[in-house]
Amino acid sequence: MSMEFELQHICTQSGARCGVIHTKSGDVPTPVFMPVGTQASVKTLSPDEITQVSENLILANTYHLWLQPGTDIIALNGGVKPFMRWDKALLTDSGGFQVFSLSHIRKIEESGVTFRHHLSGATLHLTPEDSIDIQHVLGADIIMAFDECPPFHSGYDYMKQSVERTIRWAKRCQEAHGNSDSQSLFGIVQGGPFQELRKMCLDELIEMDFPGYAIGGLSVGETKAEMDDMLAYLSGHMPQNKPRYLMGVGAPRDLVTGVLHGIDMFDCVLPSRNARHGTAMVHGGKLVIKNKTYEADLSPLDPHCDCFVCRQFTRSYIRHLFKSGEILGLRLLTYHNLYYLKQLMKEVRQAILSDRYSDFVQDFYAANEIEASLQ
Amino acid sequence: MSMEFELQHICTQSGARCGVIHTKSGDVPTPVFMPVGTQASVKTLSPDEITQVSENLILANTYHLWLQPGTDIIALNGGVKPFMRWDKALLTDSGGFQVFSLSHIRKIEESGVTFRHHLSGATLHLTPEDSIDIQHVLGADIIMAFDECPPFHSGYDYMKQSVERTIRWAKRCQEAHGNSDSQSLFGIVQGGPFQELRKMCLDELIEMDFPGYAIGGLSVGETKAEMDDMLAYLSGHMPQNKPRYLMGVGAPRDLVTGVLHGIDMFDCVLPSRNARHGTAMVHGGKLVIKNKTYEADLSPLDPHCDCFVCRQFTRSYIRHLFKSGEILGLRLLTYHNLYYLKQLMKEVRQAILSDRYSDFVQDFYAANEIEASLQ
Repeated sequence: MSMEFELQHICTQSGARCGVIHTKSGDVPTPVFMPVGTQASVKTLSPDEITQVSENLILANTYHLWLQPGTDIIALNGGVKPFMRWDKALLTDSGGFQVFSLSHIRKIEESGVTFRHHLSGATLHLTPEDSIDIQHVLGADIIMAFDECPPFHSGYDYMKQSVERTIRWAKRCQEAHGNSDSQSLFGIVQGGPFQELRKMCLDELIEMDFPGYAIGGLSVGETKAEMDDMLAYLSGHMPQNKPRYLMGVGAPRDLVTGVLHGIDMFDCVLPSRNARHGTAMVHGGKLVIKNKTYEADLSPLDPHCDCFVCRQFTRSYIRHLFKSGEILGLRLLTYHNLYYLKQLMKEVRQAILSDRYSDFVQDFYAANEIEASLQ
Repeated sequence: MSMEFELQHICTQSGARCGVIHTKSGDVPTPVFMPVGTQASVKTLSPDEITQVSENLILANTYHLWLQPGTDIIALNGGVKPFMRWDKALLTDSGGFQVFSLSHIRKIEESGVTFRHHLSGATLHLTPEDSIDIQHVLGADIIMAFDECPPFHSGYDYMKQSVERTIRWAKRCQEAHGNSDSQSLFGIVQGGPFQELRKMCLDELIEMDFPGYAIGGLSVGETKAEMDDMLAYLSGHMPQNKPRYLMGVGAPRDLVTGVLHGIDMFDCVLPSRNARHGTAMVHGGKLVIKNKTYEADLSPLDPHCDCFVCRQFTRSYIRHLFKSGEILGLRLLTYHNLYYLKQLMKEVRQAILSDRYSDFVQDFYAANEIEASLQ
């Protein structure tokens, strides 16, 4: 097996869980946030720095790497990990989400999806088998089944059709993957807001016995309450002995709440997107570094953070970098934001291990002024 | 004294020289290339990385820092060095060159220069005394006199007027600077293509006894032969016991040739500008990384380079970063280009110390296919 999940502890106060994902490329403590290296680069960071801001596991996007540089070039370089000089664990998504969110004029058939390249306009076709073939070349430790990711409020009838197809595609992915020991294939639960469809999807996937289960189609525009309700519902039905991965979620509030519902893995571009907009993720909320108020502020970005950015630079300097268009500003904020999430998840794991995660969540909500209705 | 120059050796084969600039912030071996940190940031690089690609001395631009973030903010941060967390030596230019190259609608009077901000359009005024005051706040180890930098081919009459004013401004800078021990003020030789004016300017500056002399107004559009001729002429007249700084020059061929004419210090934005355009400076010339030919090239950027970029990444990967718009590509190329120049200057110094610099220059010209007429 390329991956084995060890459940270490269930918090007696909250029911939240922590564990370890053992991979051939290192151990990954859970719950874990995975930095995103869409195009075989975690934006602006060197491999050494990625090690510092991650827990030995990052994500890359199949859709982007398939289109640029393409599988031939990746294969020539020995896979994504040697390509980007990342020697820890890697997860690739299936490309499904990007096909449905980035591309144009698509036709969804039983065989797969036809769409136009979001930049070149070229017509492309992707099947579950293609996705697995590509992910074999990319060479990640954990790979994902190719799924359809419809809008959250697509309506019951369409969602039912779609989920049934996603289940058939999951089966085809499993067959295409074969009994590979070098990569672990996760199934993805879809079904939008419908508990019945989510449950059906989950049950069918459990029947196929995947080494891990992801929840897709959340954090796509629904309310926090809708997301929370679905996680609360699903957590009661997911197998205890397999990792649970909530895809595309990375806001601190959602991580903390997701863990409460038994989620083990998260990924999101939010830390680097925030950095691009000059927003630092800090204890207690956010800090928009371009604000005039930070012009003469000699304190670090986040006084509670011990990352190299917060140990070295003033808000005044980082604001100046953004005001003057210096890329170093983007680099420093990206590093800090990812480091912040790594530290947050470390605190989350400590709270679970010491059976005080409910207290932790309450304190976090209070410190971040999150309304009770969203708890 | 904030700076002392020690002449160590004159190459018996070529007459080229090497030495050490002793500063309170560390020793700087010469000849030296200084990376440019225009806005208190050497583009994309952290202070640790700047240390790796420099010889303890970098440059920042007075004009840019005066306008953003302004002297109040720099003063509050304790100067440019604490601001950007650079604890080695720093040199600031006077702002003169930027006033004449970047700004619009200027009026040059005896008192100073009136111009429009190159971005905001605001009308600004800068005098020699202002420049020194600003540079005092910026706090560099070496600061520069405020000079006029007219186009190379301005005509003799205008150039003579301009040089005479630059000499008077140099005197005013010296008086404004006072007898400060914490910063060393260099004079700047102007005079365009006219040996007579250059000589007059140099003699007057020598009379004022600056701790170092810069050559301005070269590499501004004149031919290589014109630059070489002027350097050959001036080198015979500059004091042996003071450092000689050729401003704004950084092409490898110009560094190697400048050293032959006794130059000790250089600066230029070329390494980072090249990086922005995807051009790597490598042994034997240049490499345009976006070229299709590097798509499947698994060799390092420069097989003769031992920098972390060349030790870790393939051309194929770096090309992919540029093709996909990943900022890491810019960062890797900036680092490599600066490292390449640092190594080049190290080889230059070794060749001088072992009295074989003429051979070195011949070999360099041959390896880089530089035409005999430009030697």
